[in-house]
Amino acid sequence: MMLISRCLCLILSDIITPSCLHHILLEFLGTALFLSASLSGVLMLPAAGPDQPTNQSVPSAAPSGLAPVSPACPLQVALVFGLSVAMAAVCVGGGVHLNPAVTIAMALTLRLHLWRAALYVIGQLLGGVTSAALMLVLTGDVTPALNQVSAGVWLHQAVIVEMLVTLQLVLVVMATTDVPLPTVVPPLLVGLAVGLGHLVAVSSTGCGMNPARSFGPAVIALDFTDHWVFWAGPGLGACLAALLNDLLLRPRWHRSGDWW
Amino acid sequence: MMLISRCLCLILSDIITPSCLHHILLEFLGTALFLSASLSGVLMLPAAGPDQPTNQSVPSAAPSGLAPVSPACPLQVALVFGLSVAMAAVCVGGGVHLNPAVTIAMALTLRLHLWRAALYVIGQLLGGVTSAALMLVLTGDVTPALNQVSAGVWLHQAVIVEMLVTLQLVLVVMATTDVPLPTVVPPLLVGLAVGLGHLVAVSSTGCGMNPARSFGPAVIALDFTDHWVFWAGPGLGACLAALLNDLLLRPRWHRSGDWW
Amino acid sequence: MMLISRCLCLILSDIITPSCLHHILLEFLGTALFLSASLSGVLMLPAAGPDQPTNQSVPSAAPSGLAPVSPACPLQVALVFGLSVAMAAVCVGGGVHLNPAVTIAMALTLRLHLWRAALYVIGQLLGGVTSAALMLVLTGDVTPALNQVSAGVWLHQAVIVEMLVTLQLVLVVMATTDVPLPTVVPPLLVGLAVGLGHLVAVSSTGCGMNPARSFGPAVIALDFTDHWVFWAGPGLGACLAALLNDLLLRPRWHRSGDWW
Amino acid sequence: MMLISRCLCLILSDIITPSCLHHILLEFLGTALFLSASLSGVLMLPAAGPDQPTNQSVPSAAPSGLAPVSPACPLQVALVFGLSVAMAAVCVGGGVHLNPAVTIAMALTLRLHLWRAALYVIGQLLGGVTSAALMLVLTGDVTPALNQVSAGVWLHQAVIVEMLVTLQLVLVVMATTDVPLPTVVPPLLVGLAVGLGHLVAVSSTGCGMNPARSFGPAVIALDFTDHWVFWAGPGLGACLAALLNDLLLRPRWHRSGDWW
Repeated sequence: MMLISRCLCLILSDIITPSCLHHILLEFLGTALFLSASLSGVLMLPAAGPDQPTNQSVPSAAPSGLAPVSPACPLQVALVFGLSVAMAAVCVGGGVHLNPAVTIAMALTLRLHLWRAALYVIGQLLGGVTSAALMLVLTGDVTPALNQVSAGVWLHQAVIVEMLVTLQLVLVVMATTDVPLPTVVPPLLVGLAVGLGHLVAVSSTGCGMNPARSFGPAVIALDFTDHWVFWAGPGLGACLAALLNDLLLRPRWHRSGDWW
Repeated sequence: MMLISRCLCLILSDIITPSCLHHILLEFLGTALFLSASLSGVLMLPAAGPDQPTNQSVPSAAPSGLAPVSPACPLQVALVFGLSVAMAAVCVGGGVHLNPAVTIAMALTLRLHLWRAALYVIGQLLGGVTSAALMLVLTGDVTPALNQVSAGVWLHQAVIVEMLVTLQLVLVVMATTDVPLPTVVPPLLVGLAVGLGHLVAVSSTGCGMNPARSFGPAVIALDFTDHWVFWAGPGLGACLAALLNDLLLRPRWHRSGDWW
Repeated sequence: MMLISRCLCLILSDIITPSCLHHILLEFLGTALFLSASLSGVLMLPAAGPDQPTNQSVPSAAPSGLAPVSPACPLQVALVFGLSVAMAAVCVGGGVHLNPAVTIAMALTLRLHLWRAALYVIGQLLGGVTSAALMLVLTGDVTPALNQVSAGVWLHQAVIVEMLVTLQLVLVVMATTDVPLPTVVPPLLVGLAVGLGHLVAVSSTGCGMNPARSFGPAVIALDFTDHWVFWAGPGLGACLAALLNDLLLRPRWHRSGDWW
Repeated sequence: MMLISRCLCLILSDIITPSCLHHILLEFLGTALFLSASLSGVLMLPAAGPDQPTNQSVPSAAPSGLAPVSPACPLQVALVFGLSVAMAAVCVGGGVHLNPAVTIAMALTLRLHLWRAALYVIGQLLGGVTSAALMLVLTGDVTPALNQVSAGVWLHQAVIVEMLVTLQLVLVVMATTDVPLPTVVPPLLVGLAVGLGHLVAVSSTGCGMNPARSFGPAVIALDFTDHWVFWAGPGLGACLAALLNDLLLRPRWHRSGDWW
């Protein structure tokens, strides 16, 4: 009993420091900024009807302004997500995660204390919900920004695709964490990895890759259909990436001496 | 009375130095170069009719050359604006603002004297008007390059969108100002932020983000409909970014000692 | 007889070292990662029918989810391949080849022992087959990912196009190998070269450039039609690039003294 | 008489050095490489008919392989040209011009001897003709790669547009020449400037920016209609950029002391 309270006390004294609280605030602000830009980019894509050169002689009845387009151009969605995560990481500072999957991989490889990781994740989820709420105020409807498994895609396929794209994202994050690089390079590389993930996965699952991105609109729209896919896929991908990186690609026991 | 004249004298002696006048000239030249490239890119987009693979068997009557296309491809508009602001900043030199919103944020955070800021803004607006006038000579009509709130978008939505995209732009500018970076990196990052802003906002407001960009065509076409939106949105975004950056993200009192 | 066995012994003692085995493993993992991302990007492109704004009033009967599109958008294919090779090289580490053509050029210019080169190539081919097998499990059909010479393109044209795009890729690799550069720059440059190659060649040959990329789906789909083109073209291009680089662009005898 | 022969003798002894001949060879090889990639990218764009999701139920009769598309997608053309000039400059080495307009600006600002400049230009033009001849062998027709003023565009408009895009290109080249930068940065910046120029000008003039690029296909196709536009525009732009850079942006007398 006393042990537990003492342990808690130690943890609390680690958490309630200016630097840790500032980090959690940065995770919250960064995720909110990143998802506000991304989701508004998805929700405000030009309506397909009158804004693109099809041969519809009759202008569509829908207002052309903020009408959301569900089957959006993958290239543009990829650019918006990749650029906004890169810009948010540049704004907030290089060491920010902005993604629960990344935080999980960092905690799993003992690069981050478990309790700090939990608080980072909470900050990221709050950031996601905040930005989705802002989108609700701005456009009145966030359902087009929901991550949903497309018709014709089986759930296990969706999980594998999410796992694959998160795997490469987390591998890129870990590759840029351990080596000294100029401050703006890791955000840009992560932005490229996010863009690649969206190019690959946007047509089958809308591309989650980031539970905070999936969680925000799901809470605001109160629609949790297949929501577990967007936690299981990225979670598995992050664990696999953590193992692959620390055991095979950049083995940690390699550092002091050679393989055997 | 004597105080005022003395104050003016001091200010004038600060302004009329080669370095300050050179900076104002650079703001003028840079903005003129950036907007000449951007606006000609927007005004000379290929006409939608015969240049794209639609199934119009009858070629449209409009001349295909310089016919402007109002509902332009957002991706291409974003690329043209992002690339031209990056290239102009590379040409003119890294420390240039090219955007009244950036200058306002710099003045607000005491990184720039108020009178210098005012002269920079005047230089930028003159650059915008000059390039719009050049476009009038070249294409005969600048109305397609006007920033206008799309039909179906309410004014408060337009202001919020403009505020959001300017917020992230000014945050990126401030993040790259304070740390030492290779000379060509800040222009490229700003170009990416401008491109992101256009991807997000081009369908709802045409994407201002930059009062000089909105002001130039508005003066030449003498069309100031909803023009205040493109000053209020970027202005609010710049102020918010200045506060967010100096109070939360990179708190200035953090530098000498810790938070409390 | 004794000479041969002694020679073999020497070779084996060079190969069976931790560093060499680790390199072969990295080639295998990197190629598998790169091609898993690329091929899933090609196989899961949004079906052309209902996902894009055409004026087909009747939704196509094909399921919209993972339905592969054979005549895919070249720009998106180029982005997926360029980004995934860059990300895989970042993840795995800068010195990786991921492409038998690059390994051939390195062996030809005596930058790599012949037996090591052979093992690298085997690792890359296994990586290609592994990722194609994964795609078969995931989507049930890998034929849309096959490299095939388009109808209307003669075989000698296909070989020349493949040679040309591999030539520029290998030249870029060799230009970034010899000079000291930050660790993330070569992968990004190689990604750009791969993207350029796909923009040029995707419509005529599907763009091989990389025998491992062509070999994997061909083995899984058991379809070797014109498969030699995707070995001859890149092979010739790699040899030409090796000669051009070491004899004309960066002549090696130039290093100790001047030309004559 | 003796003076002239002596002068010639001096010039020749400056030219016939290994370093100068190597530079001319690099200009030739680089331009040939750059234009082979670019022009094949333009000539082998997928035919618009069956390769893109239009609702043509009847497949077009034209062979889908190497059929050239005259009104090509500006975005893809810009990417191909920007990437190939960047990759060629990376392959060949950073200090290469690959463009007579750049060489003219360098000679005009006394950064290069006049006779060397003339030989560089000859090397570039030969490179352009060589690559156009290669394209003729490969595709049988180079007319779709010709630079031509679009219907509906007046010649003075075409000259101004060409001048504007060359102006920004040469300014970027000069801005990256004088400061110390990592070796791969200038090629990438020049590639971005070339891409921007194509986005702006491809619909009105096909975007020359580079007399060698315009000259090669014109010689091979023996079609010199309005060919002077693609020398006058870039030439004027280069001269203007040289003056602007050395007098206003980075004034040369600024270096020793201040403005007055």
